Amino acid sequence: MKKFSQWVNSIADAGKELLSGKARQDKSQSLASLCNELCTSKGEAMGTAIAHEVVKAYSALDAERRLAFFQMLHKDFGADPKEIVKCAEAFKQAPGRDTYRALYHAVETRRQILFSRINMAPDGTETLIQLRSDLLDLLGQYPELGGVDYDLRNLMISWFNRGFLTLEQISWETPAHILEKLIAYEAVHEMTGWGDLRRRLADDRRCFAFFHPALEDEPLIFVQVALVKGYAGNVQELLADPTEGKTDSRGHKPDIELQDGFDTAIFYSISNCQEGLKSISFGNFLIKQVVLELRQEFPQLKQFATLSPIPGFRSWLSKELANRDSTVLDVKTRDLLKLLDSNDWVKNAESKEKLQPVLTKLCAHYLYNAKRGIQPLDPVARFHLGNGAQIARLNWLGDTSANGIKQSAGLLVNYAYDLKSVETNHEAFVNEGRVAISAEFQKLVKNTAVPVATKKPA
Amino acid sequence: MKKFSQWVNSIADAGKELLSGKARQDKSQSLASLCNELCTSKGEAMGTAIAHEVVKAYSALDAERRLAFFQMLHKDFGADPKEIVKCAEAFKQAPGRDTYRALYHAVETRRQILFSRINMAPDGTETLIQLRSDLLDLLGQYPELGGVDYDLRNLMISWFNRGFLTLEQISWETPAHILEKLIAYEAVHEMTGWGDLRRRLADDRRCFAFFHPALEDEPLIFVQVALVKGYAGNVQELLADPTEGKTDSRGHKPDIELQDGFDTAIFYSISNCQEGLKSISFGNFLIKQVVLELRQEFPQLKQFATLSPIPGFRSWLSKELANRDSTVLDVKTRDLLKLLDSNDWVKNAESKEKLQPVLTKLCAHYLYNAKRGIQPLDPVARFHLGNGAQIARLNWLGDTSANGIKQSAGLLVNYAYDLKSVETNHEAFVNEGRVAISAEFQKLVKNTAVPVATKKPA
Amino acid sequence: MKKFSQWVNSIADAGKELLSGKARQDKSQSLASLCNELCTSKGEAMGTAIAHEVVKAYSALDAERRLAFFQMLHKDFGADPKEIVKCAEAFKQAPGRDTYRALYHAVETRRQILFSRINMAPDGTETLIQLRSDLLDLLGQYPELGGVDYDLRNLMISWFNRGFLTLEQISWETPAHILEKLIAYEAVHEMTGWGDLRRRLADDRRCFAFFHPALEDEPLIFVQVALVKGYAGNVQELLADPTEGKTDSRGHKPDIELQDGFDTAIFYSISNCQEGLKSISFGNFLIKQVVLELRQEFPQLKQFATLSPIPGFRSWLSKELANRDSTVLDVKTRDLLKLLDSNDWVKNAESKEKLQPVLTKLCAHYLYNAKRGIQPLDPVARFHLGNGAQIARLNWLGDTSANGIKQSAGLLVNYAYDLKSVETNHEAFVNEGRVAISAEFQKLVKNTAVPVATKKPA
Amino acid sequence: MKKFSQWVNSIADAGKELLSGKARQDKSQSLASLCNELCTSKGEAMGTAIAHEVVKAYSALDAERRLAFFQMLHKDFGADPKEIVKCAEAFKQAPGRDTYRALYHAVETRRQILFSRINMAPDGTETLIQLRSDLLDLLGQYPELGGVDYDLRNLMISWFNRGFLTLEQISWETPAHILEKLIAYEAVHEMTGWGDLRRRLADDRRCFAFFHPALEDEPLIFVQVALVKGYAGNVQELLADPTEGKTDSRGHKPDIELQDGFDTAIFYSISNCQEGLKSISFGNFLIKQVVLELRQEFPQLKQFATLSPIPGFRSWLSKELANRDSTVLDVKTRDLLKLLDSNDWVKNAESKEKLQPVLTKLCAHYLYNAKRGIQPLDPVARFHLGNGAQIARLNWLGDTSANGIKQSAGLLVNYAYDLKSVETNHEAFVNEGRVAISAEFQKLVKNTAVPVATKKPA
Repeated sequence: MKKFSQWVNSIADAGKELLSGKARQDKSQSLASLCNELCTSKGEAMGTAIAHEVVKAYSALDAERRLAFFQMLHKDFGADPKEIVKCAEAFKQAPGRDTYRALYHAVETRRQILFSRINMAPDGTETLIQLRSDLLDLLGQYPELGGVDYDLRNLMISWFNRGFLTLEQISWETPAHILEKLIAYEAVHEMTGWGDLRRRLADDRRCFAFFHPALEDEPLIFVQVALVKGYAGNVQELLADPTEGKTDSRGHKPDIELQDGFDTAIFYSISNCQEGLKSISFGNFLIKQVVLELRQEFPQLKQFATLSPIPGFRSWLSKELANRDSTVLDVKTRDLLKLLDSNDWVKNAESKEKLQPVLTKLCAHYLYNAKRGIQPLDPVARFHLGNGAQIARLNWLGDTSANGIKQSAGLLVNYAYDLKSVETNHEAFVNEGRVAISAEFQKLVKNTAVPVATKKPA
Repeated sequence: MKKFSQWVNSIADAGKELLSGKARQDKSQSLASLCNELCTSKGEAMGTAIAHEVVKAYSALDAERRLAFFQMLHKDFGADPKEIVKCAEAFKQAPGRDTYRALYHAVETRRQILFSRINMAPDGTETLIQLRSDLLDLLGQYPELGGVDYDLRNLMISWFNRGFLTLEQISWETPAHILEKLIAYEAVHEMTGWGDLRRRLADDRRCFAFFHPALEDEPLIFVQVALVKGYAGNVQELLADPTEGKTDSRGHKPDIELQDGFDTAIFYSISNCQEGLKSISFGNFLIKQVVLELRQEFPQLKQFATLSPIPGFRSWLSKELANRDSTVLDVKTRDLLKLLDSNDWVKNAESKEKLQPVLTKLCAHYLYNAKRGIQPLDPVARFHLGNGAQIARLNWLGDTSANGIKQSAGLLVNYAYDLKSVETNHEAFVNEGRVAISAEFQKLVKNTAVPVATKKPA
Repeated sequence: MKKFSQWVNSIADAGKELLSGKARQDKSQSLASLCNELCTSKGEAMGTAIAHEVVKAYSALDAERRLAFFQMLHKDFGADPKEIVKCAEAFKQAPGRDTYRALYHAVETRRQILFSRINMAPDGTETLIQLRSDLLDLLGQYPELGGVDYDLRNLMISWFNRGFLTLEQISWETPAHILEKLIAYEAVHEMTGWGDLRRRLADDRRCFAFFHPALEDEPLIFVQVALVKGYAGNVQELLADPTEGKTDSRGHKPDIELQDGFDTAIFYSISNCQEGLKSISFGNFLIKQVVLELRQEFPQLKQFATLSPIPGFRSWLSKELANRDSTVLDVKTRDLLKLLDSNDWVKNAESKEKLQPVLTKLCAHYLYNAKRGIQPLDPVARFHLGNGAQIARLNWLGDTSANGIKQSAGLLVNYAYDLKSVETNHEAFVNEGRVAISAEFQKLVKNTAVPVATKKPA
Repeated sequence: MKKFSQWVNSIADAGKELLSGKARQDKSQSLASLCNELCTSKGEAMGTAIAHEVVKAYSALDAERRLAFFQMLHKDFGADPKEIVKCAEAFKQAPGRDTYRALYHAVETRRQILFSRINMAPDGTETLIQLRSDLLDLLGQYPELGGVDYDLRNLMISWFNRGFLTLEQISWETPAHILEKLIAYEAVHEMTGWGDLRRRLADDRRCFAFFHPALEDEPLIFVQVALVKGYAGNVQELLADPTEGKTDSRGHKPDIELQDGFDTAIFYSISNCQEGLKSISFGNFLIKQVVLELRQEFPQLKQFATLSPIPGFRSWLSKELANRDSTVLDVKTRDLLKLLDSNDWVKNAESKEKLQPVLTKLCAHYLYNAKRGIQPLDPVARFHLGNGAQIARLNWLGDTSANGIKQSAGLLVNYAYDLKSVETNHEAFVNEGRVAISAEFQKLVKNTAVPVATKKPA
């Protein structure tokens, strides 16, 4: 009957006794002093008691003291350049095991030890994730703290190794305190509440998340999947609830059933959950694992594809419009695109009819040809193509939400994950920047108003 | 109904498809080539498929190829000394974020990346632990492999951080495949089989283990505790089964009940389980956590103490006997100790009577005064005193097993863990080499035949 | 990953093969024929296959056929009066084991066998509960079906024996598909949605339910408890959410904490969940078990009491007002009570002030003196007093919801469960109709405007 | 960390307070008085407190008092014959709902109420099963207690309805305290200890058990299955451990793997576990459910069959030998069968060779023709044929254990469960006594030395 968290608390409190010896007396210790102590042998000897004090002290800091704390980590817990130089010279003189290890230790910062010890406390991992989230908020203004982040991020990359993550299916039978977090964390297509969530967990949907054992109730990332027939192209249709407002005689909402004949799994939303784990990537692993899981459960599935936003399309288009020398836009096109200036074009059948071929081709061009170095300009394209997916299909008016219109004129794209092509696609993409595309998409690129390949060199 | 391991297998097999693309063709790949590939960006892009191939390939190696594999890791996956020197010089010229990071990367070995990626596979962590166990067996003969071990050990220290371990109570309700491992792993007082184990898991006993989430069914370390009245001094009494040979009318063994009036928890056996996690220490954390758990369950507990072996006593004594100038032994004592030459002294009441005072004092002297640097010579003493425990009591004929007689003439010692003194004890021990002892033990040291403190300088 | 329900379905389908033998051929069987078959030895030999067919066939019935099915159960599956008379006469002639058993069997109906066999199917118990719920809806119009209900109810009393129920704590960590049912089933103070539910499951609240193993996800009854200081008298205060509209920086709702100093557990809502288990009583067992659970978790609890509606008060009062000879109401009181005719009295401070003493006394009189036989007229009073509780306190304007005003002029009552008095209270209540009351409530009864005790005989 | 049983105990103790009121004072109550009280309304009002007292009091009875307790149940808690006769006459006069219900109640004994209430206590169901086990031991000597057993058995049939049982797979990952019971309960082929059990739970074996939710840790019945190629005919081969005495480098026993090519599931042992549930049958349901489970897990399975003992063969044979007029045995056969008199025939190749054809045919005859009414004389045959199985194959020297030789001259038989024939087989067996046999077995019966069908009428 007792909740787990209560046990942890009572035990952690009990651990306090370890700190009640003569050595400590009755003065309350500063966080700096606790951190220093935690890095010594005593940090280990006291079990997790000192680490627990650090966790509590950190949680109680206000914004100002938090900044001071990070500054202290930056100044007092970094590596010692003199020691590094000394060890480096010794290594240069006589490269070998001992000089290597000495250098290795010199390069290591005391922050790494400190963070590792904080991690030992109950809620230690959670605290470090919060700490990094706080730190990231400050990095813009205090770039010198980048070294602190560097250490913390390296530890997290090690700790959140794929081998330690567990894949869990999220369903309507999942505990409410976890589902509640999904509502808060959904980043692609906002959830409006429990009714919306319930529809996304119906029998014709699947949801999977990665968890880490040290963060029992906190998803790290989750993906939402629709089981449908053929590629789905419209996200509002996927999110609609066909049982809206209906209840049975006992007041229960009716269940939505999985329809026969489905052959495609559409990954229509992937959300990272932990700000403090930023740039530690889970998405690629998640997608591939879920493809395997789904194929296990449903051998009838023939295709696995995303229904993805194209976040950079409109801003790229604006730049092209602003650029008088753009080779992408001719006068007629520029003229037509003025229709976009009014937000009402989506409601106007004529405008939509006119815009469809032009925007579709431009978007295909954007995805296929617009680059940053040899990689696509669009960040979502970069991610999926880097994973070995191919561009399968563009979907006109796939997302007619305000956000969808704003970022990509309502266009959505399917990236297909065909396991057999993933390796080849990945290698061609990484080595040559080659973008894998479907035959259908191929036609859009061939027919672009402005044959880019020949013009770009100009 | 399906067992978990079957799921994992089917999924891992499915992952194989990822490797079936054109790029790979039909040739079966060498382990070296897989390892190289795993370290590239493709290692991540392929999800866990390549890592899984490496795991399978490693498991299939025979001893000779295993050695070759380790040699390859040593030679081809280490850090590049030239690159280190280059980066170190750049850092020396201009210490700063970029030069520091470059050096940091140069110091890092490809092995670390390789091991991290192997860890991503199903059974990856288990494979690495096995790999390190295999490696440790070779270190004596091939000391150059120490660098490979260094990298692996550093990763494991990070991954097996206390914050990721879970404490589990082991009981007679624990699954048999785990209990079976306890029988195999018990290192202090061997278990003779399931009957012996059952007695150690009765109501008047407790057993706790640390587990790591990536090794679901493998304890890392476990401790066995007896709930008794006052210090227990004899381990055979603790291990005896009062229900030996009894069964009830239904063929069930009767339960052993926890007796009223107990006030002491005796930690009579602590065993590390994983050879491949050698020198990654869990014991100190385990003891302190279990003290807190037990106090939570049984507020009536007044004392927490070990019943520990003294593994170095007899070999130290032999050296003193061999040393003609020993200040510890006088002629009369030397004479008396000849009784030890016969293994029968334990069965001889007179011999025992004569030996008791002499051996007890010598053993007290050994524990208290025999040093390696400023630390005790005895490794078990070093461990518990370093944790902040104190020497509480010596127990004559505490372990009359062949092994007990051989290593410590049957003597056992209680180290007491008094939470309130742990910090003070630890600091005095680490800083000054001061050994915390009870008033009772104090008398033994005072009365040692040979007042060591004054003689040692001589 | 596979959901349990899928297993059950696939297995049940597989069971179909058992029915595919020659004997059955291809004709689809009628429900009547299946029921007859299920009562024979074959019903058992086929495992659960025939029972499963009956379950499916019943679920597919429309209202008309359902009625026909119940009529069939009534006519064709009852006991045979001739057989009963025959066996009764044999018993009368020679009372003994064999004649007794023959009579026992004659009295038993085939319906009992049929229901027992249906129960063997997957979802069998659930189907029977649904079946009884359907049946109860028809009883008013078709009283002859009472015999069918009698058999079913007797079986359910046996199957839902307290010994087979498990008490579960319901919390915010409970799976959503169960929580959703609580929202639907709450019968006393309606839940407006997930936000309302979340508040009722906060740290200063407890919720417990009985479950039956055959109905894994269906609570049978649940009770909601508030942990407060002293008796709570106002239910709207208990239901209010102090964190209304607040969220933290990550979009999470803040937690409501349990306040120090609480000493009382208020049971403010008890709801039965299964229409089909009507008149099978769980409430008394639930309350007593929860008192014990709470005392275990919180030794500081001093009082356990309900905050209960008084559903019959206003209708009783209306009758008294309509009765010109009422000895309870004098002219002045009648005059004052006209204030109740307007629904606005609750918003009018003067009206409230005037009405409080009069309504409070009348309500105390109603609870204490208004009887049906020797038992209280009020059904909720009957329940709690029968359980051994005492009337502790009346609460003016304890429930100002429309329903609260309508049924009891906003008054609520606390029934206190003092374990030490339960037995005495129960016996006095059952044997003599004596109602246990607190000293505080005693004053209200003494001071009733109309000294009832002396007048009643009149 | 707290074990569940501890919770239950503390709560049950707490419930004691309910019995501490004035009404009870300090005298300790007799079991008779507690039982009477438990049957009144107070029995329910006190929650489970009185029932718990009864459970404790019963457990403390010695053999003599236990008998006295059963005698009391027989005399004081039975039905009242006068009341039965009165109600029966009323029913005869006016058969109808009210007279029926009155008679129904009159036929019900107070024991039924008492047992139902005892069942409400913690450990209530367990206590009643123990109570029935104790009672069955006494029935032979005290047949008048049969009525007490009749009531208890009827309740248990209701409570242990198939719909309330759960099928669990038993594996080497099952908790040891449950596995330990399997060792004790195995009734067909005795288990010699944990090593034997481990082999029976290896990857090429399956074990399933029925559990009841009120008896969490107690299997009711379990079946052991071997996955093999073709019918297995020898049980010692199935029980042999191919890894006997082997351990790997870490001290672990090697795993036995499931071999490719298996197509048959052999049910080689079915054991009932609870003496107190005697003659409440689970076996038929278990076999059919396990067939479905196995087919789900292994679609490659083509055949499901038992490897069963023939417990009555030798004793039937002895009777035939003793019967001079036996039509089954001719002189030559009688002569040959003298070989059986020496226990050594099993070790003698010549004896075995001579006996094989004769004993096999006689055994086939026994199984097929020896009857009790229209049913087979052999109880195991009766069970499986009644379930709808067919006799598939006789196995010479299938069980060479002392017991196997003793009861059936080492012969074992396979009963095949072909789902598609089960219904037809069952009906023919029940209605006409027809025994389903395989073509292979058919030959044995045709060729019996003595054509029984024609001789029996003689």
